[in-house]
Amino acid sequence: MKDLGHGANINQISQQYNINTEDILDFSSNINPKVIDGLEKYILEGLNECRRYPDINYTDLRNNISKYININSDFIIPGNGATEIIYLLMKCIDKRLAIFNPTFSEYGRSASLNGLDIINLELDKENQFSIDIEYIKNNIEEFDSLFICNPNNPNGKVQDLTELLDLMKKYNKLLIVDETFIEFVKQEEKYTLVKYIETHKNLFILKAVTKFFGMPGLRLGYGLTSNKLIIEQVYNYKEPWTINSFANNISKYIFNDKKYINDSKEYYVQERNYMLRELRRLKNIKVYDSDTNFILIKLYNNKSDEIKVELLRKGNILIRDASNFIGLDNSYIRVAIKSRNENELLIKHMKSILGA
Amino acid sequence: MKDLGHGANINQISQQYNINTEDILDFSSNINPKVIDGLEKYILEGLNECRRYPDINYTDLRNNISKYININSDFIIPGNGATEIIYLLMKCIDKRLAIFNPTFSEYGRSASLNGLDIINLELDKENQFSIDIEYIKNNIEEFDSLFICNPNNPNGKVQDLTELLDLMKKYNKLLIVDETFIEFVKQEEKYTLVKYIETHKNLFILKAVTKFFGMPGLRLGYGLTSNKLIIEQVYNYKEPWTINSFANNISKYIFNDKKYINDSKEYYVQERNYMLRELRRLKNIKVYDSDTNFILIKLYNNKSDEIKVELLRKGNILIRDASNFIGLDNSYIRVAIKSRNENELLIKHMKSILGA
Repeated sequence: MKDLGHGANINQISQQYNINTEDILDFSSNINPKVIDGLEKYILEGLNECRRYPDINYTDLRNNISKYININSDFIIPGNGATEIIYLLMKCIDKRLAIFNPTFSEYGRSASLNGLDIINLELDKENQFSIDIEYIKNNIEEFDSLFICNPNNPNGKVQDLTELLDLMKKYNKLLIVDETFIEFVKQEEKYTLVKYIETHKNLFILKAVTKFFGMPGLRLGYGLTSNKLIIEQVYNYKEPWTINSFANNISKYIFNDKKYINDSKEYYVQERNYMLRELRRLKNIKVYDSDTNFILIKLYNNKSDEIKVELLRKGNILIRDASNFIGLDNSYIRVAIKSRNENELLIKHMKSILGA
Repeated sequence: MKDLGHGANINQISQQYNINTEDILDFSSNINPKVIDGLEKYILEGLNECRRYPDINYTDLRNNISKYININSDFIIPGNGATEIIYLLMKCIDKRLAIFNPTFSEYGRSASLNGLDIINLELDKENQFSIDIEYIKNNIEEFDSLFICNPNNPNGKVQDLTELLDLMKKYNKLLIVDETFIEFVKQEEKYTLVKYIETHKNLFILKAVTKFFGMPGLRLGYGLTSNKLIIEQVYNYKEPWTINSFANNISKYIFNDKKYINDSKEYYVQERNYMLRELRRLKNIKVYDSDTNFILIKLYNNKSDEIKVELLRKGNILIRDASNFIGLDNSYIRVAIKSRNENELLIKHMKSILGA
């Protein structure tokens, strides 16, 4: 694989810095550390399913997601992670795609691999990476679709996108929102646009199951839209059997585990407050607001690659050097919110590097 | 998903014919019924890996495959089943692709979705679906690449492709061989072209791990080539993290299980002989030669859809109506080779339908 500039190449880091993979504290990828009860049982049950081909229509899987988010299962397109759906969608939309930066690099990669014209827009760094709606209004004829991540990666602050959605509807433009991290948000109900899926055919939402449920290696995500033309086009290109039996089977259980869901959300609300407060006590950095499970930091006196190496050497801690995000530079790093013990270690080591 | 015309939509059949999915004897998909020893242990071990993102380079996975087939790991491109690799390859080859029919429909689908010109060639039905090498010689300027499945699906007879490979090399054309079913062949060593990967840059081979190892729901396949340009192009398009942690982890074990591999091969050699012999005792059908785990049958007096329904009604047996393969018609069915008990049931019910 070429270097796509993502976080968390644990194996490479392990070799390069001579640290066992198990000993690396990975703050570079954004995964819920909580383990769901009954996981072993669910996985072993999937073993029986694994002995035959998955249902090519993933009817049960879509029904299970449907019950979770209360959306018609016909409007749910399951994928091998949200990544599969991003790449499929890029084959199905009009030529000019605006992307709000800095953000997850796969939007741009998938768009350019599919020959789209990319219009890179900037989130307002000085104003907690918010959208300038006036700017969108004035430039709305420049693009056909608009891609935004909410809460955005790498900064993590959630935004109210209802005004943007209505503006886009008025001009008959497609709004694509990656809500992969929205389950970590305290007021998820207020900010998610899922409730507009059935009324707004110009809306496409991406969701990932396995980040919030702490299993990125399971590979399960989905897309949502009530736009029949897009659904048809996506299935026209979709490869068969992309979702494995374990992901398929576990969908029977995880969405019903309200305790896991509530506990995780509550944990992140509290731990985020703790992390923001403690990080903001450190000198020589700016800590951006976050509503999700990671935090963006601007370094005033350090370089991102240097602090990354120091944290690895001093504490086996791997953070995300955020310099390769479009619109950022080597004064930015991103850290995940993990368990309290791990978070304390990060803060301790950052303090010793930055100066107290 | 639109109907892609594959076998084994167990869920749909279950509803349509009011049979529990567990009660359906699935002769329509071609899966090794043997279960590998230690499978539960391997899967549970994968659960730990599942809690983080898979290695984006799949270095260990490629090394494990490398030891199994004795090919440089740089020449191994792992995929979410062979299907992912087929679709990627179609983005990377020249415009004119010849495909030998009848065969697996995803070659044609992936080619046309990527705008290739498809030249449909015919295998010689009257001669056990063999290749006419003279025909290829005379028409070699008509195409840039040639796709063949060996042993071919749906007929199952293996062919010696060395002459074809050399011809293609001489004319600087790409030969794509799907060897998904070759591990079931008695003289696998003789027929596999894997040994030519390093010497023939015009060769691309597809392999699926999970058919022979009886786990199609695990989703693991790979492509092989020493053609650096193709490798580079494939990775240019490849999506990140397509292979799940369970597939990744289990690669440590399954390829080393020589007992499973030998026992499976031996079982299929014997059971194939039994099935061919018993089926050939039935009236009103022609049974084609097979070297793998399925058998193609031509019906003289029955229609494929009718016998399919009768077998479902009489014995909960699901076979593959092979009428939608290019070049076949509604006088063809395909059956898998399963356990002895199941095979006996199939033969008993076919006998009662066809007349003894």
